[in-house]
Amino acid sequence: MAKPKKTPRPKAENPKGFRDYFGADVTERAAMLETIAAVYRSYGFEALESPAVETLEALGKYLPDVDRPHAGVFAWAEDEEEGKGDWLALRYDLTAPLARVYAQHRQELPTPYRRYAMGPVWRNEKPGPGRYRQFYQCDADTVGAASVAADAEICAMLADTLEAVGIPRGDYIVRVNNRKVLNGVLEVMGLADEEQRAAVLRTIDKFDKVGEAGVRELLGAGRRDASGAFIEGVGLSPAQAEPVVAFLTSRGETAEATLANLAAAVGESAVGAEGVAELRQIAELLAAQGYGPDRIVIDPSVVRGLGYYTGPVYEAELTFEITDDKGRPRQFGSVAGGGRYDDLVKRFTGQAVPATGVSIGVDRLLAALREKGRTRTAERGPVVVTVMDRERMADYLAMAAELRAAGIRAEVYLGNPKNFGNQMKYADRRGAPVAVIAGEDERARGVVQLKDLILGAEIAESATLEEWKERPSQVEAARGDLVAEVRAILAAHGLGPSE
Amino acid sequence: MAKPKKTPRPKAENPKGFRDYFGADVTERAAMLETIAAVYRSYGFEALESPAVETLEALGKYLPDVDRPHAGVFAWAEDEEEGKGDWLALRYDLTAPLARVYAQHRQELPTPYRRYAMGPVWRNEKPGPGRYRQFYQCDADTVGAASVAADAEICAMLADTLEAVGIPRGDYIVRVNNRKVLNGVLEVMGLADEEQRAAVLRTIDKFDKVGEAGVRELLGAGRRDASGAFIEGVGLSPAQAEPVVAFLTSRGETAEATLANLAAAVGESAVGAEGVAELRQIAELLAAQGYGPDRIVIDPSVVRGLGYYTGPVYEAELTFEITDDKGRPRQFGSVAGGGRYDDLVKRFTGQAVPATGVSIGVDRLLAALREKGRTRTAERGPVVVTVMDRERMADYLAMAAELRAAGIRAEVYLGNPKNFGNQMKYADRRGAPVAVIAGEDERARGVVQLKDLILGAEIAESATLEEWKERPSQVEAARGDLVAEVRAILAAHGLGPSE
Repeated sequence: MAKPKKTPRPKAENPKGFRDYFGADVTERAAMLETIAAVYRSYGFEALESPAVETLEALGKYLPDVDRPHAGVFAWAEDEEEGKGDWLALRYDLTAPLARVYAQHRQELPTPYRRYAMGPVWRNEKPGPGRYRQFYQCDADTVGAASVAADAEICAMLADTLEAVGIPRGDYIVRVNNRKVLNGVLEVMGLADEEQRAAVLRTIDKFDKVGEAGVRELLGAGRRDASGAFIEGVGLSPAQAEPVVAFLTSRGETAEATLANLAAAVGESAVGAEGVAELRQIAELLAAQGYGPDRIVIDPSVVRGLGYYTGPVYEAELTFEITDDKGRPRQFGSVAGGGRYDDLVKRFTGQAVPATGVSIGVDRLLAALREKGRTRTAERGPVVVTVMDRERMADYLAMAAELRAAGIRAEVYLGNPKNFGNQMKYADRRGAPVAVIAGEDERARGVVQLKDLILGAEIAESATLEEWKERPSQVEAARGDLVAEVRAILAAHGLGPSE
Repeated sequence: MAKPKKTPRPKAENPKGFRDYFGADVTERAAMLETIAAVYRSYGFEALESPAVETLEALGKYLPDVDRPHAGVFAWAEDEEEGKGDWLALRYDLTAPLARVYAQHRQELPTPYRRYAMGPVWRNEKPGPGRYRQFYQCDADTVGAASVAADAEICAMLADTLEAVGIPRGDYIVRVNNRKVLNGVLEVMGLADEEQRAAVLRTIDKFDKVGEAGVRELLGAGRRDASGAFIEGVGLSPAQAEPVVAFLTSRGETAEATLANLAAAVGESAVGAEGVAELRQIAELLAAQGYGPDRIVIDPSVVRGLGYYTGPVYEAELTFEITDDKGRPRQFGSVAGGGRYDDLVKRFTGQAVPATGVSIGVDRLLAALREKGRTRTAERGPVVVTVMDRERMADYLAMAAELRAAGIRAEVYLGNPKNFGNQMKYADRRGAPVAVIAGEDERARGVVQLKDLILGAEIAESATLEEWKERPSQVEAARGDLVAEVRAILAAHGLGPSE
């Protein structure tokens, strides 16, 4: 007789590229996002929450991240009994859904429409170290405003936002460039061939990595990289390549100098001149509001997204140094980027609608705040009321309730109370500042024991026996003084009730 | 020659059963969730955010909502080049992921593990009016605590939570029942047949709808419903059915009376007696903390989820009346439910882990708060600085920045300024309290015009010409007094800067 088959147990595992977030990782992000939202709202931006799921058709294929070549979406066919059998997909960013929302609701929405959105997006791509298939974005966009005042506003708001979450002035810089200037450069180069223009754009995109000399090589005959591999070049002559290099390196000492360099680089090109004029206007609007070059600069070396956007492009970089995996110092780098894109809504309606917006890389910005010690203090663990006598559970629950009513996080140990050592281990693992202990003897005498676990940990780490005697980590308190005495212990460690 | 085919434009539409949330609909929900999270944290619960996507295998099929028969999940096959070709799916609730998380991370997590989670879940089912395929849940669960003190704690926390978000005491009731008592009843009835037990459970589930008489009929020969259709019964004799009816109707004047009725209903059944003892313990623990029957009651008529849970079951109902679609008064009804389930983690590890928890229906609770006028005041629209002269954009941006610096939400009109009427329409649509107007004349005289749009709307609605003369809705202010004068207008309407 065959044995009955057992259903194998499911594996308790995240799908590859997904992860769980616990405790402070959740609350610190939420606090940061709420701070960002408050700045966005103060500028008149309104919240929008579109669903995670869109029709694949509505999403289209407009992934801006050229450095994520395997980018794809999670998609599936709508159940057939549901009708048409549309393909549905998880949104891969917050911009494509905005275009759909604006096209769908444009009759009811104000124009211009300023909106912010924050939430997870999904990418069906190969996960790698620190690269997940679900991550947060936090966007602000203005739809329906052709004026570059809208771009300037978003740059100013981005600077305000970084300061509001805790990046001090001087530790960040917002750089502004303009795709139209690049178009002017390509025009004066006389690159009519679409493929060659695309090759130049791809090369420019590598400027961050390979620098000026590298770009010269890649625009010309080609370049041998560090690994010895040869990358073929675009095949331009040095003279032909010159305007591109001039564009990328045109940042001067002042905005005025930069703009003069750019004007020279675009020569007679009308679109190029338009781009330079836009940058000038942005610089003037920002200067008039006091956003000087210590916060926002015109910088043609910003190339990220230059292939995607149609006008001004901006990027926020954190300029303080961190130590990378290999112990080398490096700048923290980009935490937000955006620009003007005038064709997204047109896909739906046939009418071009000007739009500009920024996306903050939530996880990177949060990592930066942690690096600077600027996340809002994570809550301490709760006071743990231990269980010495199962029959007195109601008393213990009442103690925790009293502490909570006084604004002190508190809980009763709800595991098996038999082994008291386990209760103390639990309190440690919870990061509890205080453990409350009340057995039969304490009940009879109307007192409780309060164990100062912060002091206890300090003593355990450092102290000599003498110190230990002087600073007892356990005190007895009258039952009626429970709240006051716990408060006193917290205060001795510089902790308020809600910290 | 054939015309070249045009790619048809994508439709700007949500997938069926999905919707967008705008402005206050987003911020009011976020504010409510943050209030709930603060209560949960004060009880020692820790945040957990698991991803939207799980393996289908890990999710299993444990949908608790028996009243959603078409319930299903959105699932798709993992890309084949990614490897094993697992099936992935969107989570349909927050409990199945908790079981996976606990099984996966149990070595690092404290035991008991109290966690809360809030976020969207997805159901692949037929959408209907007010029934969406993406909606929010907000859960708190304690894993690894066998003691019913954990159940009592969650009931108390649920009561505290409802009061914290703005449901006054007296407008809600938390009802508690116990599956073990029902098991005891089934035992004394001698229903050994698994199918018959299941049929009795399904019948009990209809108690809410059909009442005592209806349940009697359905347990017996059957019942003709309002439409004339005949529903076949379980086929029990009236005497056999009696213990079930006794169970469902055993609520007495006091907890003591209810418990006595239940003890009688379960007779000699050991599991039944255990269930009654658990309910007694819960009642005592809650009474000792001051949660009387005005907030939490033992009520055997709570049947929702009784087929799913394995011990105590609880449900929060709002008891105030609202008017339904057809103009009839009815109680608002259930906004949260939960109970004890001891088998979810076992799927993964083979070891039973006791767990109990509650899920709040976020959308229903938010609807209730709106009904009671208790949502946190939605922010007013921003002050709109109009554009009279394109060349002076920097001035206008500076005015908005000054207002923001004073804590007043403000923005500059960024559409085409040519038609001033459109700017005022825009300010109206944005719900702006004040419009700032500064043209060439104002610039020359160093003043601005402030239009009080709240007063303007009041006048437009009601006033006689005389009143209108007395209360001019537009005032002139010195440019330097912009902030002070806007503040004065807001204050006259009882609005602080950040409202």
